[in-house]
Amino acid sequence: MLKLAYLGPEGTFAEEALRILAPDAERLPSANVSAALDAARRGEADGAVVPLENSLEGGIASTLDELAWGDPLLITAEVLLPVEFSLLARPGKEIGDIKRVYSHPAALTQCRGFVARELPDAVVVAAPSTAGAAQEVALPGSPYDAAIAARIAGEHYGLVELAGRIGDRSDTVTRFVRVARPGTLPEPTGADRTSLVAFLSEDHPGALLEMLTEFSVRGVNLTRIESRPTGDGLGNYFFHFDLEGHVADARVGEAISGLHRICADVRFLGSYPRADGLAPQIRRGTADADFSEAESWLSRIRSGLV
Amino acid sequence: MLKLAYLGPEGTFAEEALRILAPDAERLPSANVSAALDAARRGEADGAVVPLENSLEGGIASTLDELAWGDPLLITAEVLLPVEFSLLARPGKEIGDIKRVYSHPAALTQCRGFVARELPDAVVVAAPSTAGAAQEVALPGSPYDAAIAARIAGEHYGLVELAGRIGDRSDTVTRFVRVARPGTLPEPTGADRTSLVAFLSEDHPGALLEMLTEFSVRGVNLTRIESRPTGDGLGNYFFHFDLEGHVADARVGEAISGLHRICADVRFLGSYPRADGLAPQIRRGTADADFSEAESWLSRIRSGLV
Amino acid sequence: MLKLAYLGPEGTFAEEALRILAPDAERLPSANVSAALDAARRGEADGAVVPLENSLEGGIASTLDELAWGDPLLITAEVLLPVEFSLLARPGKEIGDIKRVYSHPAALTQCRGFVARELPDAVVVAAPSTAGAAQEVALPGSPYDAAIAARIAGEHYGLVELAGRIGDRSDTVTRFVRVARPGTLPEPTGADRTSLVAFLSEDHPGALLEMLTEFSVRGVNLTRIESRPTGDGLGNYFFHFDLEGHVADARVGEAISGLHRICADVRFLGSYPRADGLAPQIRRGTADADFSEAESWLSRIRSGLV
Amino acid sequence: MLKLAYLGPEGTFAEEALRILAPDAERLPSANVSAALDAARRGEADGAVVPLENSLEGGIASTLDELAWGDPLLITAEVLLPVEFSLLARPGKEIGDIKRVYSHPAALTQCRGFVARELPDAVVVAAPSTAGAAQEVALPGSPYDAAIAARIAGEHYGLVELAGRIGDRSDTVTRFVRVARPGTLPEPTGADRTSLVAFLSEDHPGALLEMLTEFSVRGVNLTRIESRPTGDGLGNYFFHFDLEGHVADARVGEAISGLHRICADVRFLGSYPRADGLAPQIRRGTADADFSEAESWLSRIRSGLV
Repeated sequence: MLKLAYLGPEGTFAEEALRILAPDAERLPSANVSAALDAARRGEADGAVVPLENSLEGGIASTLDELAWGDPLLITAEVLLPVEFSLLARPGKEIGDIKRVYSHPAALTQCRGFVARELPDAVVVAAPSTAGAAQEVALPGSPYDAAIAARIAGEHYGLVELAGRIGDRSDTVTRFVRVARPGTLPEPTGADRTSLVAFLSEDHPGALLEMLTEFSVRGVNLTRIESRPTGDGLGNYFFHFDLEGHVADARVGEAISGLHRICADVRFLGSYPRADGLAPQIRRGTADADFSEAESWLSRIRSGLV
Repeated sequence: MLKLAYLGPEGTFAEEALRILAPDAERLPSANVSAALDAARRGEADGAVVPLENSLEGGIASTLDELAWGDPLLITAEVLLPVEFSLLARPGKEIGDIKRVYSHPAALTQCRGFVARELPDAVVVAAPSTAGAAQEVALPGSPYDAAIAARIAGEHYGLVELAGRIGDRSDTVTRFVRVARPGTLPEPTGADRTSLVAFLSEDHPGALLEMLTEFSVRGVNLTRIESRPTGDGLGNYFFHFDLEGHVADARVGEAISGLHRICADVRFLGSYPRADGLAPQIRRGTADADFSEAESWLSRIRSGLV
Repeated sequence: MLKLAYLGPEGTFAEEALRILAPDAERLPSANVSAALDAARRGEADGAVVPLENSLEGGIASTLDELAWGDPLLITAEVLLPVEFSLLARPGKEIGDIKRVYSHPAALTQCRGFVARELPDAVVVAAPSTAGAAQEVALPGSPYDAAIAARIAGEHYGLVELAGRIGDRSDTVTRFVRVARPGTLPEPTGADRTSLVAFLSEDHPGALLEMLTEFSVRGVNLTRIESRPTGDGLGNYFFHFDLEGHVADARVGEAISGLHRICADVRFLGSYPRADGLAPQIRRGTADADFSEAESWLSRIRSGLV
Repeated sequence: MLKLAYLGPEGTFAEEALRILAPDAERLPSANVSAALDAARRGEADGAVVPLENSLEGGIASTLDELAWGDPLLITAEVLLPVEFSLLARPGKEIGDIKRVYSHPAALTQCRGFVARELPDAVVVAAPSTAGAAQEVALPGSPYDAAIAARIAGEHYGLVELAGRIGDRSDTVTRFVRVARPGTLPEPTGADRTSLVAFLSEDHPGALLEMLTEFSVRGVNLTRIESRPTGDGLGNYFFHFDLEGHVADARVGEAISGLHRICADVRFLGSYPRADGLAPQIRRGTADADFSEAESWLSRIRSGLV
């Protein structure tokens, strides 16, 4: 039976994402993103489900860095999950009793307005995950009065919901990805996304412009770009890219080969169906048929047969 | 007397940065980056010192977002601070006693190797700041056995250093900036940096390439680019840019005017001396003298006098 | 009374163009393009009318070079003239008698099909102008039997038209320009063209791409680009550009100032109303109002007032 | 025995070029460039030698257009020929007797200074070739007193040289090319040139910039660009390109395939050794080894083996 690690404990949004992506899989909760990915790497699980990007917080740094630096893993699927937060407390507490709130920093940021309005005097403390916060708050001697987490986490740990939908925006979405050890890629579906990481060969002026030109000249559109520090001093960055299309597409293949030629390193993170099912607009001259026709033409002229 | 807010409590790296940037200023510790910036905005302080970027963790999201969205503030100075971490505990504890470690997530990430090696069984808990972790650990009934923080924080709160220089890298640097309400800009020094935020007018393919071209065509080099979500659904980003030069420089002025024309909004975040004192390489034809000569030429030809 | 030089003798297409551009002007026929332009330069005429470009033959090299290298002249108007050729002979000749045909090489090229079909055995000789060919053919002892020229030239020199509209294409057009010594420019009309010449500062790879980027980044469209040799060895070229808009337009002014900054030399050849009256499509952010708004914004931020 | 057509009659610079390129070939003089190329096309000759470009006059329009539009021919070799002009007359004439000068327009332009200085009152008449002018002047009843042509033409037709080296510049060079019907290409030598013609698929703003980007992104340098009218009305151009490298080079092949994909048509005109023997500077990441390594990498990641 398929076993997938995820950012636990039970009750996280990641668990919800896993249930959507693989309803029948056995679930292995992990303490954090690194642990979930390492479980997949070491073969303790067949893969992992982790958050990659949030519409309010941006790229999830720990996931981005783990995928860039550790043993290679490939993204094989994605799911978009609306994120709704609740204020959860042990039974018997009321909102006026809440002096110390515990949650993941991303959740705290997304509920900043609610906290400022309804809990102006509360001390706010950062937790490693929202479900972990719920778990901690559920302990009898917990120093925290309430957690901000998914309602499902409250149900799981026996907390009551003092307030629901407390996020500053009602349309926050998190993108979760399923990753696996390298192996067969998902087939192209016509509405795919490709993720990769590129390290500059030298950080000269215009290097980013050059990288973007490798994509644009082949009509490949980016859907996300994220810079991350290499760790080698300030001002040294590498880049995460998400782009439209599948590595099996000719335009994508040529573009990332170009990137590979001019970069110190390019790590391929996978091609997989887009959760939103949006097919890319193919610019004139960049469809697979255009590339194969051009290749035939090139063969002809190379053999002197104009 | 000048009063500056900073990310407190006493003993943070931000305090150290503030002491370097303004040794004689009165210091107003704030609970978090938002609070420090708001103190500057509301006039409770004359400015604030906050972290902007870390060589290991990248841009500090809370600072980036606060500067982009709240009432305008201008960066007037920067300082680079080597970041060294210590494991700090109440007197009498030894390293074998440490079961629960408390620190800011960035510090925990930067000391991941030490913790895995020396404290493999410890539970690690996220704190709002490193100095805040030290403060909490110093409380007699604290549920935490040790903090990871700057040695100065340990001294401040009466903790002992169980281990020093425990970061995975010895060369980690954080860039702190001093901000103030809009007013006079620092004079150009010849080795300046300009920061700004740009919002796309529509997120069409190639929009980022267009923005970068506005810089490159005027010979303006970027030193940092950071994408941040606008909050309006996945895939919608705005961009933080740091670039070489002062807004008073002709090439910088024309480039960011060009950006202003093609973007929905550009927020200027200040021009200020670079902490590293590096002067930019001026590409042929982009010095101030070249711009003023070209302007004279244009005036002549516009009046029909070739 | 206004006096204009033109590529003579009487009966040339240039005379026809002059009559359209300045019906009441005194006409001064010149032996060739150089002579016409020199007459304008020396003040013997108030200006000159010369061909610049032909839809079949391309740029007229002698005009392009004269405008680039001699004393500066400015284009102040243009006219598009359909070019129709006739086979002209002395009275009494019939088409079967034509053994030697005389005309300007451009006209010979444009009537290549007719000559091959109707005069397969004729010897074809190059003349300095079509009207000059008609003039020569009209001489009693001329070694030539027929000229290819405009019908008007035949009428002028007393020749009969053996065949009309003999060009291979019926839609050939020549663009003639009126030039004058530098002085006041024509006012912008909203449908203007600007001509200029640019000399590279060094012929490095990508220099042309850089020049084109100066235009494209300000939304300035080119309508013509022509390379001409500098004379300094093979492979060294300078460039003629025609572009949409008037030098008084902000986007045009900034673009050609940019060109001026990166080139060894830029010679402005004038801004003048387009004969076809086509107004340019102004790309978002590049209208005059956008430039002046951006300038105000820049002034504000430079004075610290975000 | 190899037979090559050339722009005749005997004594032209083209004959000189042919003697260098193929000393032992049988020579077939032709009336003009078209005739020489047609002789090659129809198999009356094994190839042809024609001028392509002159350092003073630029591209030779008739050659450029013939290669672009007629049945395909391939350039297989090039030679650079210094061009020196002499004033040639029938024996007995002196310079004071010269009233009518006959020569090719390009030669007349290149000797403009000499003619203005030494023959200010002479009538100057255009001839189809310089050697043809010498041939005509040699006829007893010729209406012309002198020809401007190569000294060799004078020797050939029994004329005397009244003045030598009369060109305005002493370093004028013409590039002649040898063309043949399509067949095997010359092998790459490491110092090759590739010529081609590109027709835009639609003349939108920025089309030329897009074409140049196809070259620059693969590190392919252009050595010549020439616009020629398509004949379909003013402002519609196609482009001749000469570029560094051989179509067998990976970077050249990919670049011109890209051009082929975005253009209405690309006509390959051949890859052949450069006469100057200059090897191109290969930009990082664009050598053949870089391309084949990138291709292997792409195959690996496409099969899921990162």
